[in-house]
Amino acid sequence: MRTLDYADGVITMIDQTALPEQETWLEIATVEDLVGAIKRLSVRGAPALGVAGAYGVVIAARAHSPVDEPDAFDTAINRIRSARPTAVNLGYAVDRVAPIARAHGLEAAEVEAHRIRDEELASSIAMGDNGADLIAELVGGDAVRAMTICNTGGLAAVERGTALAVVQTLHERGQLTEAIPLETRPLLQGGRLTTWELQRMGAPFRLIVDSAGPFLLSRDAADVVLIGADRIAANGDTANKIGSFSLALAAAHANVPFIVVAPESTIDMGTPSGEGIEIEDRGVAEVAGVRDFSWTPANIDTINPAFDVTPASLITAIVTDTRVVRVGEGEAL
Amino acid sequence: MRTLDYADGVITMIDQTALPEQETWLEIATVEDLVGAIKRLSVRGAPALGVAGAYGVVIAARAHSPVDEPDAFDTAINRIRSARPTAVNLGYAVDRVAPIARAHGLEAAEVEAHRIRDEELASSIAMGDNGADLIAELVGGDAVRAMTICNTGGLAAVERGTALAVVQTLHERGQLTEAIPLETRPLLQGGRLTTWELQRMGAPFRLIVDSAGPFLLSRDAADVVLIGADRIAANGDTANKIGSFSLALAAAHANVPFIVVAPESTIDMGTPSGEGIEIEDRGVAEVAGVRDFSWTPANIDTINPAFDVTPASLITAIVTDTRVVRVGEGEAL
Repeated sequence: MRTLDYADGVITMIDQTALPEQETWLEIATVEDLVGAIKRLSVRGAPALGVAGAYGVVIAARAHSPVDEPDAFDTAINRIRSARPTAVNLGYAVDRVAPIARAHGLEAAEVEAHRIRDEELASSIAMGDNGADLIAELVGGDAVRAMTICNTGGLAAVERGTALAVVQTLHERGQLTEAIPLETRPLLQGGRLTTWELQRMGAPFRLIVDSAGPFLLSRDAADVVLIGADRIAANGDTANKIGSFSLALAAAHANVPFIVVAPESTIDMGTPSGEGIEIEDRGVAEVAGVRDFSWTPANIDTINPAFDVTPASLITAIVTDTRVVRVGEGEAL
Repeated sequence: MRTLDYADGVITMIDQTALPEQETWLEIATVEDLVGAIKRLSVRGAPALGVAGAYGVVIAARAHSPVDEPDAFDTAINRIRSARPTAVNLGYAVDRVAPIARAHGLEAAEVEAHRIRDEELASSIAMGDNGADLIAELVGGDAVRAMTICNTGGLAAVERGTALAVVQTLHERGQLTEAIPLETRPLLQGGRLTTWELQRMGAPFRLIVDSAGPFLLSRDAADVVLIGADRIAANGDTANKIGSFSLALAAAHANVPFIVVAPESTIDMGTPSGEGIEIEDRGVAEVAGVRDFSWTPANIDTINPAFDVTPASLITAIVTDTRVVRVGEGEAL
């Protein structure tokens, strides 16, 4: 399922904030609406944000010709760029399409935006194939039980995704016994979104609370662990959703392959190791409850690291859209 | 704070189902009300259930003289006994007080019930002292940051508790820098109850989501991990709330002491090892949300182990009300 697309001046996207209770499709024809959707997290995930940004430039160019109204056009695309300042893909995609809009006009910009979308799709398909091939080799070709964390599917990446793309490919090949998604506190992307995607693809799955993952690995309940990545350092240390480290430790203890799935663009050769990755604390509200529902006493303190860092020594392999790097056997990025 | 007590025919207990939003004290003068409170989980935790059962016999004996109305008395105490059939302490306490009520009357039964309460308090104080002494020895006398899971405080044990009794003793001795409670999905006893108890005792703390625990241990954020126990096998393997195993693995990886705190009665020498402990699956509803609030799609499957088993090899020491057994140094129970 394609979760975000564009035709005739309109971006169509699923509203992720309403999932899984409601499947609402947004039709976005103005920069203002797009910026609102990005800020509200109706669209999230690095690849999806990139594609949204690319089509945003097209919408901006339709409203304000880059040639006739260059200032209005620049103002519009800067608003898109700054809707999520830390989203690298958003800025990258805007900066790739905007010069083409200025130099060659609207039609060329549309072609470039579609190209960015198609590159993301091809990347997801390649990651799915590379990951499923590796698992078949590691586990011996039998169907597998695959544990995963957070949401790394089509909702984050237009279609298919990263770690969940591998799950989908396994399912399509008849090699998936079941998926075991972690609910992924505090924001519950696993319980809310990954469950919804697995249902949509017809894949068998059983949801677990996060702290059950390591124990179930120790009891031989899964054959492989698949995670995405926010950033991969040059030595292979991987920043990803909080809870990934705990799974990696348990997978190593249980001798279960632990595989990171991410596009090449996630590898940051400028960061030597995980020690150089700063970890944001996302504050009290997320830990104190879910959405507007809080179950803790008032006025508490929390520690709320947004992600953790898994050392390369606990990673079996890093799978990208172009290669498989067997970190666990000493291969370097 | 004493969370359950008795005087003049009335059991007074805090209603745990209303915490932390409301501090409601129940006054219970009939067997019917007591059975309702036990079934509703207004009182929970093995020691607290034992004391509630002991006072329940007193209330039954006030309503129906064991001498003059033996059948009505027996019916009443059987109702108490079967309010939570798997709660060993409940049956134990009822069976200890009932014969005294029959043989020596109401006043003797009250004395015996108070004795059970006082034994629980003395046990908690002893566990707190033994645990705090051990930590001072292991960590060198400096104030410590203590990570803990679930609710193991006075709410589960009339007053002070087990692992949280050690935290309280450390705090009273000026040796607690902060407590780091895990929220403890699925039922959130850490986020709902332990936070409330820590606030009441004035101890500094920061709440975390469960999967942050192992990572924070790897980043030197805690000096000791303290957990309670549901059952301890003869070889030291410990069944406790789901998530305990994950903390034990991370504590071993980070070389942080991992300490189990439980009364002697938790040790089950009839079970040779953790492999003999059956793990109940508590079903879908708890994983699908909190109370009446669900965030997953409908019709999902889950794996929901109520507890996990930590192998003795990952445990530094088991602290009871009478001794410290250094499992990590090869000492046997």
